[in-house]
Parts: sequence; C-alpha cells; structure tokens
Amino acid sequence: MADIHSSTRKLLAMKNGLKPLKTAVVHPVDDYSLRGAIDSAKEGLIDPVLVGPREKIEALAKQEKIDISPYTIIATEHSHEAAEVAVQMARDGKVEALMKGKLHTDELMEAVVDKEKGLRTGRRMSHVFIIDVPNYPKPLFLTDAALNIRPTLMEKKDIVQNAIDLFSILGFGTPKVAILAAVETVSELMPCTLEAAALCKMAERGQISGGILDGPLAFDNAVSKESADIKGIKSEVAGDADILVVPDIESGNMLYKESRFLTGSDGAGIVLGAKVPIILTSRAGDSESRKASSALALVYTRNREKLDIKP
Amino acid sequence: MADIHSSTRKLLAMKNGLKPLKTAVVHPVDDYSLRGAIDSAKEGLIDPVLVGPREKIEALAKQEKIDISPYTIIATEHSHEAAEVAVQMARDGKVEALMKGKLHTDELMEAVVDKEKGLRTGRRMSHVFIIDVPNYPKPLFLTDAALNIRPTLMEKKDIVQNAIDLFSILGFGTPKVAILAAVETVSELMPCTLEAAALCKMAERGQISGGILDGPLAFDNAVSKESADIKGIKSEVAGDADILVVPDIESGNMLYKESRFLTGSDGAGIVLGAKVPIILTSRAGDSESRKASSALALVYTRNREKLDIKP
Repeated sequence: MADIHSSTRKLLAMKNGLKPLKTAVVHPVDDYSLRGAIDSAKEGLIDPVLVGPREKIEALAKQEKIDISPYTIIATEHSHEAAEVAVQMARDGKVEALMKGKLHTDELMEAVVDKEKGLRTGRRMSHVFIIDVPNYPKPLFLTDAALNIRPTLMEKKDIVQNAIDLFSILGFGTPKVAILAAVETVSELMPCTLEAAALCKMAERGQISGGILDGPLAFDNAVSKESADIKGIKSEVAGDADILVVPDIESGNMLYKESRFLTGSDGAGIVLGAKVPIILTSRAGDSESRKASSALALVYTRNREKLDIKP
Repeated sequence: MADIHSSTRKLLAMKNGLKPLKTAVVHPVDDYSLRGAIDSAKEGLIDPVLVGPREKIEALAKQEKIDISPYTIIATEHSHEAAEVAVQMARDGKVEALMKGKLHTDELMEAVVDKEKGLRTGRRMSHVFIIDVPNYPKPLFLTDAALNIRPTLMEKKDIVQNAIDLFSILGFGTPKVAILAAVETVSELMPCTLEAAALCKMAERGQISGGILDGPLAFDNAVSKESADIKGIKSEVAGDADILVVPDIESGNMLYKESRFLTGSDGAGIVLGAKVPIILTSRAGDSESRKASSALALVYTRNREKLDIKP
C-alpha cells in the first residue's frame, strides 16, 4: 500500500522558502473556516486578509481562542458582499488567491464568474483534486469533481488543459491523462466515450497541449496495468495515469469521496482558470486538507511567476 | 478496517446444504470462463451445462487440463446462437440461471431482453454488485453499475425495487437505501437530485416497498455518520446505508472499480428482473468473484423458492 498521505506531504515540502500567498478569506464566520485559514497562515502558506463581518469574526476568534491580531479584517456585512469585495481585491492585485470561508460555493463562484466584475480568463474554470490512493505509486489529479456539473466537449477541453498546466507548473513534467468512462470502448450509447475520443484527437491536433491523452478508459484500466493487459489495451496512459478526467460531477464526486473515505487520506484541491487560484474546501474537510490546498495554491502561483506565465 | 472479503465469504457460507443451481454457461471458449464455471461447479454452487462449440470447448479443456467429463455440452456454432439457446433453455425450465462466458455482455443481453423469445418479466432488468469497503461494518449493495446506462425515473424505481428484493430474499431484513448524487441537497441543475427526491416519495406512497429510502445523499453522507452529522443531515439512512443507488453507469462503474482496485476485494454480482438470475463477470474479474456471484445466484434462487416468490 502506498503512503496514503504522500501528496499532501509532498506539497507541503515544496513550499519551503516561498513567500506566503496573500489570500482573501471569504466570510470566515465559523470555527472551521477561521481556524483553517489561521492554521495555513501559521504554516507560512498564506498571508490572510479576513473579509467578513468584523464583530462576528472577532467574537468568534475570542470564543475559540484563535489569535487573529496579526491579520487585517476587511469589514463587510453579508456573505454576498464578502464575495464581491474579495473578488475586487483580486482584480486590483491586492490579493493573490481566494479561500472559501462559510458561504455556499455557488455564492462565491457567482461573484468570481461575473462577466464584468469577476475573475474570468479565456479559460473555463475548473477544479482539480490531488488524491492519494492505495496500491498506486503516485498522486492522482482528479478533475472536475467539484465545479462543472455536466461539461460540454469544449468545456472538457479547458478542464483537461487546466489540469495539464497545473501538473506541469508544479514541476511534475508531462502528465499522462486518462479520460474516464464506464468502458474502454467507444459506444454511441455513452456520449462520454465519443467525447473522450474527440479529446484525444484534439490533443493530436494541438488543440490541447502538454499532456499524453488516452480515453475512453475505465477506472481500472487507467490505474492498473494488469487490468489494461487483460483487456488488451495498448496505451501509454493505461495503468500509469497522472490525471483522471471524469465525465461529470456525479462520477467525480463519488470517486473523490470514496478515495477519501476508504483511505482516510487528505486531498488538496484548487479552482483553476480564474485570474487567481481559489481554494474551496468542504465543511466536512479538515484542517490538513485545507493546508494541503493552500500549499498547492502557493506553489502553483510562485512557480507560475518564476516561469512568467500569465493567468 | 473491516474484513475486506467478508461478503464473499458470507455468501459462500450460506450455500451449505443447497442443491447446486442448474446453470447454462454461455459460450465458455476461453480459459478464464471455462475454468471459472468448473471452479464454481466443484464448490457445489452450480451444475453447469456448457453451451457452445463442442470441439473448441473440448480442445480447450484438454489443453488447460480442466476435467469437463461430468458435464453436458449443448453444441452451438457461434456466440450469438449460444446466447439464444441458453435463453430458450431458461424459458423451458431446463436451467435455473445463466452465466456469461466469452461473449460481449450486449450480445448475451440482446437474447435475454428479446420481447418474444427472451426472459423479460414486468420489471426492468438491473445489476447488483455486493462489495466490501474498508472502514464500513457491512457489505454494500451497489446498483446499477453494469447494465442500465442512464436510467429514467421509472427504470430507477425498478432498479431500487430489484435491489431491495434481493436484500430481503437473502434474509438480510429491511435495507436502508441511499440514492446517491454529488450533493445531498436538491438542485435543479442536477436532475438526479430531483429523481432521488421523487424515489423517496414513491417509497412513501407504496410505489416502492420493503426498504427505507433517503436521497439525494453524497457518497460520504451515505456511509459515514460523521460526514452526515457535519452536514446536519437527519436521516435513518445516512451513515448506515445497505444499498447504494447510483445515478448512471459512469458513477457506478467508477465506484465499483475504485473499491475493487483499492481494497483488492472480490465482489459478487447478478442481473435481476429476468426470469432467471444472470451471472455476468468481467474478463478482468477472477475466479473468486465468479464463485461469489454463483453463490449469490444460488442462495437467491433457493430462498425465493422457499418463500414461494415467482420471478
């Protein structure tokens, strides 16, 4: 069994010497989100700006014995306003990342995707989880298990490219990308198998770059050479995938939740494709996975600067 | 960590004293499918009738040193004919179950679902896997991860009822049924969350019976009390599910493959809703999971007889 915490530790190890990421923490009005942000700050991962109702945050900090005296609070009234203000700060270059506090992902993302005042780039935004599974020698990038519900082909193109870019910017090289389906053959009854084939062709034509794609692949073919061999699949990606691209949010979410639940492992995750990385984390997540996500956003941002890649 | 082979062993233990199931093995022309069938026969689980090309089967048996002398061969030419002949034998009451050999599931199922010569009942046919996951104290029934690609609401109703009936006929009592989605709230952006709510209401109205339903639930809410508590979910099912109902084949297949891959556990599975149970098994499956599936079909059939339940 592989070390189930390896990707988290790997990310945390990569942050050494990097300047903490100036991060707007959006509406941190419960213990979980405030403590999570401050824990990441103490690790030197982020330099938080707390955006939310000042009195409520101060009272919470006092009650939960969290020292927030070193940090700035930008006072806002409601969660909706906090999201808008945080997004504006990112537009103005005052912060380099956003972290979700206590508000719905939809509410935060509504401000992020606003066509006039949001953080759009030419890319569709998408989410990447980095997870560890037993019996597999390396971390897996899983996308999109959180943001895009039922992406179209052109949205999947951006989802794939975002994940490839993340992998590459982190310094991991050229990823092998498995486009997952329920089967490894193309069937018109399962449209995601056609889209998988189309994405591979797009990579051949240069419409997607920087990764080695194959699909459709079933989960077992993607991560097990033996399964791929039994099925007679000849593929550079099969059995050795770095990135798993799921067809929709249901399959992605279940894969992610099962891996976390089965192994108890922490996962890191960020939203890409916006002007700044965005750290979501679910309420059922824990401080470790929030730290790993902060480390991911930090290393991604600093490496991008070093490589002079514009968002 | 729970005993990851517990459901397989449990099923195998239940077969004691039961008369083996007369089973048509459809086109067993490779080592894997022939050996699997004979292994199940040696365990007293099935009494196989080999339906396929006589010379090819005999040559294979000789080459692989598998003793098939105790068993009948019904000679057919092609896999398509084997499927039709096996289905006719089931219609005539000459066999009590079908087992897939070396042919595509689609080819076998085409003969099974034929409106005039097939094995239809009033129910939509569906597949149930019984899987073991670590950190969970009991086997999980997973449906439908193999047969129905994107079932409609009314098809899901039958899928749920088939799984409840299986659970109950095996003598496990009244199952808690989690209708899975990516989230635990109803959202019109995710139609499967509405269908989950509709299925719960159908259970209240008696359109589905014999189980305690709740959904939508995310995977973690379904199997972890802690996750459910953090989300404030009040539910008899959350954290204690016996049956997981997935929205489509992609999510189901990935959940199943991940559980097998992560834990190395064997799973049992059968198709319900036909006049006789049908044992599918993938080429990447192994002899243990074929035996567990045979035991499942056997116990299900004998218990159904005892309870005088007609297909």
